Amino acid sequence: MTTPLSSVKAYAAPAEGRPLVPTTIERRAVGANDVLIEISYAGICHSDIHTVRGEWGPQDYPLAPGHEIAGIVAEVGADVTTFKPGDRVGVGCMVNSCGHCKNCRNGDQQYCLNGTVFTYGSTDRDGTTTQGGYSTSIVVDAGFVLAIPDGIGLAEAAPLLCAGITTYSPLAHWNAGPGKKVAVVGLGGLGHMAVKIAAALGAEVTVLSQSLKKQEDGKRLGAAHYYATSDPGTFEQLAGEFDLIINTVSANIDLNALFGTLAVNGTLVSVGAAPDPSPVDGSLLSAGRRSFAGSMIGGIAQTQEMLDFCGQHNLGADIEVISADQINEAYERVLASDVRYRFVIDTATL
Amino acid sequence: MTTPLSSVKAYAAPAEGRPLVPTTIERRAVGANDVLIEISYAGICHSDIHTVRGEWGPQDYPLAPGHEIAGIVAEVGADVTTFKPGDRVGVGCMVNSCGHCKNCRNGDQQYCLNGTVFTYGSTDRDGTTTQGGYSTSIVVDAGFVLAIPDGIGLAEAAPLLCAGITTYSPLAHWNAGPGKKVAVVGLGGLGHMAVKIAAALGAEVTVLSQSLKKQEDGKRLGAAHYYATSDPGTFEQLAGEFDLIINTVSANIDLNALFGTLAVNGTLVSVGAAPDPSPVDGSLLSAGRRSFAGSMIGGIAQTQEMLDFCGQHNLGADIEVISADQINEAYERVLASDVRYRFVIDTATL
Repeated sequence: MTTPLSSVKAYAAPAEGRPLVPTTIERRAVGANDVLIEISYAGICHSDIHTVRGEWGPQDYPLAPGHEIAGIVAEVGADVTTFKPGDRVGVGCMVNSCGHCKNCRNGDQQYCLNGTVFTYGSTDRDGTTTQGGYSTSIVVDAGFVLAIPDGIGLAEAAPLLCAGITTYSPLAHWNAGPGKKVAVVGLGGLGHMAVKIAAALGAEVTVLSQSLKKQEDGKRLGAAHYYATSDPGTFEQLAGEFDLIINTVSANIDLNALFGTLAVNGTLVSVGAAPDPSPVDGSLLSAGRRSFAGSMIGGIAQTQEMLDFCGQHNLGADIEVISADQINEAYERVLASDVRYRFVIDTATL
Repeated sequence: MTTPLSSVKAYAAPAEGRPLVPTTIERRAVGANDVLIEISYAGICHSDIHTVRGEWGPQDYPLAPGHEIAGIVAEVGADVTTFKPGDRVGVGCMVNSCGHCKNCRNGDQQYCLNGTVFTYGSTDRDGTTTQGGYSTSIVVDAGFVLAIPDGIGLAEAAPLLCAGITTYSPLAHWNAGPGKKVAVVGLGGLGHMAVKIAAALGAEVTVLSQSLKKQEDGKRLGAAHYYATSDPGTFEQLAGEFDLIINTVSANIDLNALFGTLAVNGTLVSVGAAPDPSPVDGSLLSAGRRSFAGSMIGGIAQTQEMLDFCGQHNLGADIEVISADQINEAYERVLASDVRYRFVIDTATL
């Protein structure tokens, strides 16, 4: 027996550019492979703001964003063996993929050749538009549900589902670890997780931030060094220094200056989405067999690996828990970089 | 006993932008670690033209270019044990480096942190300006002399010292081989070697050329597939196809269109030097954990590895041998892409 289609409380944008308001959204009935999750917390990601404001293309409204979801399993479908009611679980940026293309078979569901179904604003297999985690519950295919280890509180775990995997994935792929020098550009929601994870992986971590304002935080989070990119001497001093740079800044910044700080065989990976193409001086890449790469979240197996790693190292996000009526104000503060380091909505207040 | 400082015949540019003329240049006395090589052949590389015309910065004139050098050892210094008179040898794009920096110790002398000494137009350790291979002999530190295997003629071997290693190095570094799909952009001096080497390494090779004019050549050289980049359908058809793209074109081309043809984890490596920065759409990289990299020649050990590989597979360059008085005309033909695929100067005609 499964729960029928249900209306659940949510906070959603009623139209492009409009503030979010309390409303209800529909969740599908729990299918044989589905998990019904009572959401406890939902993180606020910069992508939520871009999307509901239509900055990444037109959307269907009303739209409830949110892809950093942590909660408790309330019910599972008949064929689900991996989760049971009461389990602590999370949902990240995607809720489905084809499962049979080359990329899905390789565990890269985020690069599904037939179209990843993202957690909100995406067309689901049944033709409906997906609705995100700013709501009291969600129904998700069990293959896209993650187990949250006991070592991490649900509120601190929520941001791991996007900010955590987005930074863990390139750190793991490009072998951050003992003996490696890793720079993190930007100390925001993504950057603070990149510092924590890179340090826990054993790398020597440097933060490159516009100013030294957050230097104490950076050191506390695990950075060994902290430099201001507004100081031109920084780039001279760090020439040829890093094996890996994780660029978390979603604005267009001077990548060519950063390429000069890469060692031979070094890679700069952008995990933010810059609005415009970046002018890349190829001679700076050739001058040290350097690479400029991009990375988007991570596959489901790797997301679970990240959560398990964070559980072992007691890593959660640094958060500020807010109530639903503070969401619009929080958006303004995210845009002003006035958060250390992630807002998390207590969904009991919806 | 060593040969004293000597004047040798050469072809050199007397000043910026001037045609090359017959002249003499000085070679240093053979030191304890030096090898005196009687040059048999010197390839003409596009870089030679850029450099003597001052397009890559001001030069000291007269300047004899040439860094694709093949010849016979005439004399060795007292401490040289690796070569003896009569040996078939080559010299590529560099003739010295510090030997003790991190990059030199790792075998990447081309990225020497204290300044690689390039074969021409570079300041040598003794303060003189290096002079290249358009001459009858050269004196080079034994550590920068390569052995040419018996399987390759000296004329066909000369272009391997730049065009060969420039393409072999990224193919080897990014693991071109069986099961890998490799595209080569541009079928010129570099591109034709990239196709030969990638095919010999066991990769499935595709040529991406402006038109289909050289299609027969491409297939003969080892390409399985050949597409015209002037046909917009090409990029649609090849979406997500390649593990590795070697871009040999030194003009600014639409890299973003090429990124779309990379598979997940694929890398596009530019080995030519585009005059202007390239606008890179980072979202195309993020959409498949793709990389844009640069690579410049290769280290000495890898250059020897490349020559040995070419010897085993009987790979030389496809060449047109010319006499010295045809050099200026050959330059015009290189600029017009009218060469299949490398001019090689017979230095007996100097």
